[in-house]
Amino acid sequence: MYNAVICRYHEIATKGNNRTHFERTMLENLRRILRMELPDLRYRRVRGRIWMEFADHRNFNEQELEVIHRNLALRAMGIESYSPAIVLAPELEKIREVIKAAAGEIIPPAIEQAHREGRTLRFRFRARRSDKRFPLCSKDIEIDLTSLLGGIYGRENLKLDLNDTADITIGVEVREEMAIVWLESFPAPGGLPVGCNDRTLALLSGGIDSPVACYLTMKRGSPVDFIGFHSAPYTPPETVEKVERIANYLNTFQQPGRLYMVNIVELQKMVRDNCNPRLRTVLYRRLMFRIAALIARKRKIKALLTGESLGQVASQTVENMNTINNAVDMLILRPLCGQDKMETIAIARKIGTFDFSKEQVPDSCTVFAPDNPSTRVTVADAEAEEARIPGYWDLIEKAVETVEF
Amino acid sequence: MYNAVICRYHEIATKGNNRTHFERTMLENLRRILRMELPDLRYRRVRGRIWMEFADHRNFNEQELEVIHRNLALRAMGIESYSPAIVLAPELEKIREVIKAAAGEIIPPAIEQAHREGRTLRFRFRARRSDKRFPLCSKDIEIDLTSLLGGIYGRENLKLDLNDTADITIGVEVREEMAIVWLESFPAPGGLPVGCNDRTLALLSGGIDSPVACYLTMKRGSPVDFIGFHSAPYTPPETVEKVERIANYLNTFQQPGRLYMVNIVELQKMVRDNCNPRLRTVLYRRLMFRIAALIARKRKIKALLTGESLGQVASQTVENMNTINNAVDMLILRPLCGQDKMETIAIARKIGTFDFSKEQVPDSCTVFAPDNPSTRVTVADAEAEEARIPGYWDLIEKAVETVEF
Repeated sequence: MYNAVICRYHEIATKGNNRTHFERTMLENLRRILRMELPDLRYRRVRGRIWMEFADHRNFNEQELEVIHRNLALRAMGIESYSPAIVLAPELEKIREVIKAAAGEIIPPAIEQAHREGRTLRFRFRARRSDKRFPLCSKDIEIDLTSLLGGIYGRENLKLDLNDTADITIGVEVREEMAIVWLESFPAPGGLPVGCNDRTLALLSGGIDSPVACYLTMKRGSPVDFIGFHSAPYTPPETVEKVERIANYLNTFQQPGRLYMVNIVELQKMVRDNCNPRLRTVLYRRLMFRIAALIARKRKIKALLTGESLGQVASQTVENMNTINNAVDMLILRPLCGQDKMETIAIARKIGTFDFSKEQVPDSCTVFAPDNPSTRVTVADAEAEEARIPGYWDLIEKAVETVEF
Repeated sequence: MYNAVICRYHEIATKGNNRTHFERTMLENLRRILRMELPDLRYRRVRGRIWMEFADHRNFNEQELEVIHRNLALRAMGIESYSPAIVLAPELEKIREVIKAAAGEIIPPAIEQAHREGRTLRFRFRARRSDKRFPLCSKDIEIDLTSLLGGIYGRENLKLDLNDTADITIGVEVREEMAIVWLESFPAPGGLPVGCNDRTLALLSGGIDSPVACYLTMKRGSPVDFIGFHSAPYTPPETVEKVERIANYLNTFQQPGRLYMVNIVELQKMVRDNCNPRLRTVLYRRLMFRIAALIARKRKIKALLTGESLGQVASQTVENMNTINNAVDMLILRPLCGQDKMETIAIARKIGTFDFSKEQVPDSCTVFAPDNPSTRVTVADAEAEEARIPGYWDLIEKAVETVEF
């Protein structure tokens, strides 16, 4: 019965000069995520809303609605909520007819359900009239339609509830050119449209955390490029394949980013052969950050992005994180630094990265990993160890050179 | 009816060598947050749980339980959940009696509620026997007590449900020295006990974000010191008072941290008189970060903490955040960088900082604030502007000198 989808976003995110930029980015994003599956969908921006209808104004079928739900719920960043909707001529009699028909599909089963729970179904209308020539004001539209449904289903089955506790809220909007009716609203990711802020470079491992950090950053407007590390032949080809799979999946959420895979095994051997084993974890991360920062600079990217969380593993004491941070002179975003593992896992499941991440594949961090990593490595400690590695910076540059730009 | 409170935490957070350290910190924290209101409470660590009982083994009254709920729900960081509980002798007959009495208080009203909803109350027992000399195994304890309650209330009123969909789960644990029964579990904050990681220094404004960033960081184990900025006489005394109130409140969550208030008005005047107005916001933040880093070094603190979120305001483009970040050579934690404003507000309401923050008081950032701040300030731009300020570093040091250590 739906011939449109309406998308809502918060005014708060789009105030000031950037409003047009935000809205355009949102429109482009919707087109990008839907055009493969719904090529003849048309998009419009009208007074703080985005509309989608088919070019021939036909109704959405079940399968097309499924495409909408699957993509909007996770990928429509910047959108707060959306509703499948019915667009019709702005005439009271026509609105009444549509409401009667739509209510006929959803209200009887809801009444039954409420009865089974020993209570009365609560409903309300939310009307908005922006065309002042329409004969009824918003309030009167609500009263008219409420009494229409009350008359059909009876007060003993249907109770008016003007609060958010209503089981069913039916939206009606009357504009000059059309009226719109919707029966349900679904949450979208919110945040900001990806692409309205600059690109960042994420250190992507095969773990649970870094893909979630990427998602949250995209949801704040920044598209993400990826850098992954491997240690072939000490890590298997699956290490690279796993990171590639995750990056490909994350690219379905954004203006696709590039993935750089860097083999760091020569550097790791030098760390193994020249440095205190208890410092290896921190020294590995310092060299990964340095390689990432060099690649970011070549791509004119001004921030790195990691899945680090305070206190989760030995390298994540304040002292060690500061020493790792100190290796580069660039903004490092750590959106999970205040988050619990359980919260991160919940997001990973929701966005669909958990199934990729849970597969057990060795990664670069575990190559020659020490039994008892130090939790208190100072900047001076790390610099002293790195000074023992002959040609440290040459090796870093060599690793960067293996990357194709 | 309760004479104990039992606290649970995830094994995951306490594995390895640090387990004892984590558990001790958790115990100390519980003592700290409860000792004022419940001075005669006693604390024990037993096999991955923490126990609290009164010295004289008396029951908790309503008011004492309210103290437990109010403090544990928000302040017991590291604890996943807790239950008021009944501790008794580990004898089957006594356990049966206690279950009968406790069930008598909670089951009849729950049965009535379920009936009103047209369904049957679902319940289950979860038993654990760690004393292998007890005559019944865990499974048999569950069967025995299930049939006890089934006999009293009737199968038509009470349905066994072994899944998480049960309305009521009654826990029974049998140990050598005692048995424990509980009827309800309540969520605690989770995370890590504050104090198990190093201290950080938070840039605390009067806004909604920075107090939430402090809370999340404490919840990852790091206690927080605070630095606030004012611009008297261009900001009123209320600016300082507001930050003090927030810091005092946040200190009820942790080993109390210090608050440093710094007047930056002289620096702001120099920025106003010598620099491009469109860069003011970024230049202000760079000088705040520099002052904060100097104070952190004096206190041997290795990380700053801010409430910054990507893309929320003009100073939070990737470019500007990188330029601000570049002012200091120290780890900066931004736990909200991937979070939406609505999520942050929800946490602020939950932890009780929202009411402090929502009060409208001018802050240092708004003094001489430009109409149209630049969203693209490079590091070179900022450095060029700062070079025009005579005695910039002297003024920074002077501002730090006004702080008492």
